[in-house]
Amino acid sequence: MANDNTPPKRPTRRGFLKAGGAAVAAGASLGAAGVAQAAVKPQAHADDPYLAVEPFFGEHQSGIVTPQQSHMYVAALDLTTTKREDVIGLLRTWTDSAARMTQGQPAGPLPGPDGKAAPDSADVLGLGAAGLTITFGFGPGLFTSDGKDRYGLANRRPAALVDLPRFNGDQLIPEKTGGDIYIQACANDAQVAFHAVRQLVRQCYGAATMRWGQAGFLSGPRGQTPRNLMGFKDGTNNPSTKNPKLMNQFVWATGADAPWMQGGSYGVVRRIRITLEHWDMTEADFQEQVFGRHKLSGAPIGSKNEFDPVDLAAEDKDGNPVIPENSHVRLSNQANNNGAQILRRSYSYNDSTNFYIERWPPWRQETEYDAGLIFVAYQGDPRAGFIPINEKLSKFDLMNQFTTHVGSAVFACPPGARPGSYIGAGLFET
Amino acid sequence: MANDNTPPKRPTRRGFLKAGGAAVAAGASLGAAGVAQAAVKPQAHADDPYLAVEPFFGEHQSGIVTPQQSHMYVAALDLTTTKREDVIGLLRTWTDSAARMTQGQPAGPLPGPDGKAAPDSADVLGLGAAGLTITFGFGPGLFTSDGKDRYGLANRRPAALVDLPRFNGDQLIPEKTGGDIYIQACANDAQVAFHAVRQLVRQCYGAATMRWGQAGFLSGPRGQTPRNLMGFKDGTNNPSTKNPKLMNQFVWATGADAPWMQGGSYGVVRRIRITLEHWDMTEADFQEQVFGRHKLSGAPIGSKNEFDPVDLAAEDKDGNPVIPENSHVRLSNQANNNGAQILRRSYSYNDSTNFYIERWPPWRQETEYDAGLIFVAYQGDPRAGFIPINEKLSKFDLMNQFTTHVGSAVFACPPGARPGSYIGAGLFET
Repeated sequence: MANDNTPPKRPTRRGFLKAGGAAVAAGASLGAAGVAQAAVKPQAHADDPYLAVEPFFGEHQSGIVTPQQSHMYVAALDLTTTKREDVIGLLRTWTDSAARMTQGQPAGPLPGPDGKAAPDSADVLGLGAAGLTITFGFGPGLFTSDGKDRYGLANRRPAALVDLPRFNGDQLIPEKTGGDIYIQACANDAQVAFHAVRQLVRQCYGAATMRWGQAGFLSGPRGQTPRNLMGFKDGTNNPSTKNPKLMNQFVWATGADAPWMQGGSYGVVRRIRITLEHWDMTEADFQEQVFGRHKLSGAPIGSKNEFDPVDLAAEDKDGNPVIPENSHVRLSNQANNNGAQILRRSYSYNDSTNFYIERWPPWRQETEYDAGLIFVAYQGDPRAGFIPINEKLSKFDLMNQFTTHVGSAVFACPPGARPGSYIGAGLFET
Repeated sequence: MANDNTPPKRPTRRGFLKAGGAAVAAGASLGAAGVAQAAVKPQAHADDPYLAVEPFFGEHQSGIVTPQQSHMYVAALDLTTTKREDVIGLLRTWTDSAARMTQGQPAGPLPGPDGKAAPDSADVLGLGAAGLTITFGFGPGLFTSDGKDRYGLANRRPAALVDLPRFNGDQLIPEKTGGDIYIQACANDAQVAFHAVRQLVRQCYGAATMRWGQAGFLSGPRGQTPRNLMGFKDGTNNPSTKNPKLMNQFVWATGADAPWMQGGSYGVVRRIRITLEHWDMTEADFQEQVFGRHKLSGAPIGSKNEFDPVDLAAEDKDGNPVIPENSHVRLSNQANNNGAQILRRSYSYNDSTNFYIERWPPWRQETEYDAGLIFVAYQGDPRAGFIPINEKLSKFDLMNQFTTHVGSAVFACPPGARPGSYIGAGLFET
């Protein structure tokens, strides 16, 4: 967990810079201060998705309201160390490495034939920053684990960092659920996202272990609402990230009982498996009833365009609701949830296939897709956001017959770090 | 398995065309004949990876010497029907749908509220062809299965379609091994590749079932040799696909005992798991000894540039070989394999993580990456290509301590189809 801010001087470094293109060149002459400076003045998104550079330091962490990149790798870790200073050291190292990687630099010096394992695996050498954001979060286990206050933080746990209740239909797999620390890497390249998590996980050997990791992707060119694997546009009704008032109202946490969370956000992650084989055999008009939207246009049923308002009061000539009672759009709509909104940032996942054997008649043996949605949502307080909305959805949503929640986690994502400081400093030092 | 070539006239079709951009618009006014025509005159790769269109019909199947797209989804199916005409019907339907999808059209009419499950799930609506290629292959089970000649094809099995021998260290999982039919979809978008397989698999319900499916990806902008998850460039020494003489010598099958395979190729697929956690803890110069190449430049050890020739005779001042005896590059080199070459077309895979429990001391419980390489190689005859090369590698390659082959399959990929005919027609009709 060495925290070396000195830019490496070995010859191999030049090869990296040469290969890395514009984004890397921009960071070439920067030491620690330079990284900070580049972060304060973020570059605009370039047309080339590999040249996009997002800031790491700032008021908020990136990767929450940042427009979604095309790929994601998220991981949860369990802390194994018993020492508070190890956790702080880890967060300092992570902050430094994350800042470097988001600016298109390696996590640490590149491999050279010096007889040591290199701090960077070099598998994204030359690719550029690719819009990488790295977002950290703290799970309940950082504060109390098996009843123990391992790091003297128990009384700093925010009330909003609740243990999620069991929802109707939950079939959670322990190894895909929970975690003390959350790392979310999003980038315009699958390997860049995975690379970031992989380097950070290596840095915690001896202090923490991987609990689960998950790759995800979004399809299509940016700027349109992407379609999920069910073929419907997903995210249309998100509150606008360009509206700071909405973000303050729904996404950013207030200090409340935990001032260190001011400007942070609470993230909920759910691994939702979708039985695509079953879904694909249903007719389109039924699918539209399930979503409450038209499949091709994305418009609410009865409307023409994707962004037309959802008219929950509309009735057909027989007096039945145009948007069905148990449709996903109606149940999750703000108007049905005391005005609650959450900022969804979900990705599709495709972990290939599983083979399963039923242990009762008809003793079916079958290969099935292990694919679905990594649902990610940010909010100022899950007790007013995800929890009440999902309480309703988990009971009544027509979609439930095609979806199973198999993983779940909740994290307090602190505000962004200042250059020279580290992620979560407010928790440990104020 | 309806084979309807008539372009659908429903209003929703217009929405698709409008959304789909140039590549789709080009196919807009085409019926069945039009699809064929577009295929005969392939469009050049556009700069926009979503607008790239590859031909489906032709002398050879696409997806073999086609420059690698950024994503892949491959699947193997087991035939369950006992009727030869079902297999032919399936191949006709698949040929038609595959031709449509590679030209940026849906597999069949898009969903409409007509009370029927639509032939296309619409989840890539508007994305364009994205360079999609779809390649079909026939496994040993098409010819003989459990000793049965189900379709009257037993005597048409080419000698080159061998059952692969067990290689040293193989730890094959039956549910990720073998298969009667191979479908390989490659595209510049993960969802476009998966979508193609998903539609084709749906069309075979009742006649075949999925045996295994696997997603894969390549990192970085095209035109460079991509790095695999071990951080090394992969594919540098491939025979040039721009050299027809080399392709005829090493990749395309001759008729030999099976004239229907003239112009086809034999594909070998291996799911190779890599223990990245272990690899990442080794020093860079050891890693370079394992590969026989420098990590950053990709050059053979002792050389400067990636494409410098591999000098197996070079010795250091003590008379030791510069490129180690058991390095991957030396063992797999043409000069060590009677001149044999294979065309590698591998992709990285990342199926997130697995949790495992050891059942003996030290009873470790750990989450590990389920990531590695989907090795795909094409050749004119595996008995002169993959088999002897891998016999050597599986015994001596230094890399074996980090890799485990967990899935394996071999397929005879017939030549391309003529417009109006279907993939594999030569096998059934001559």
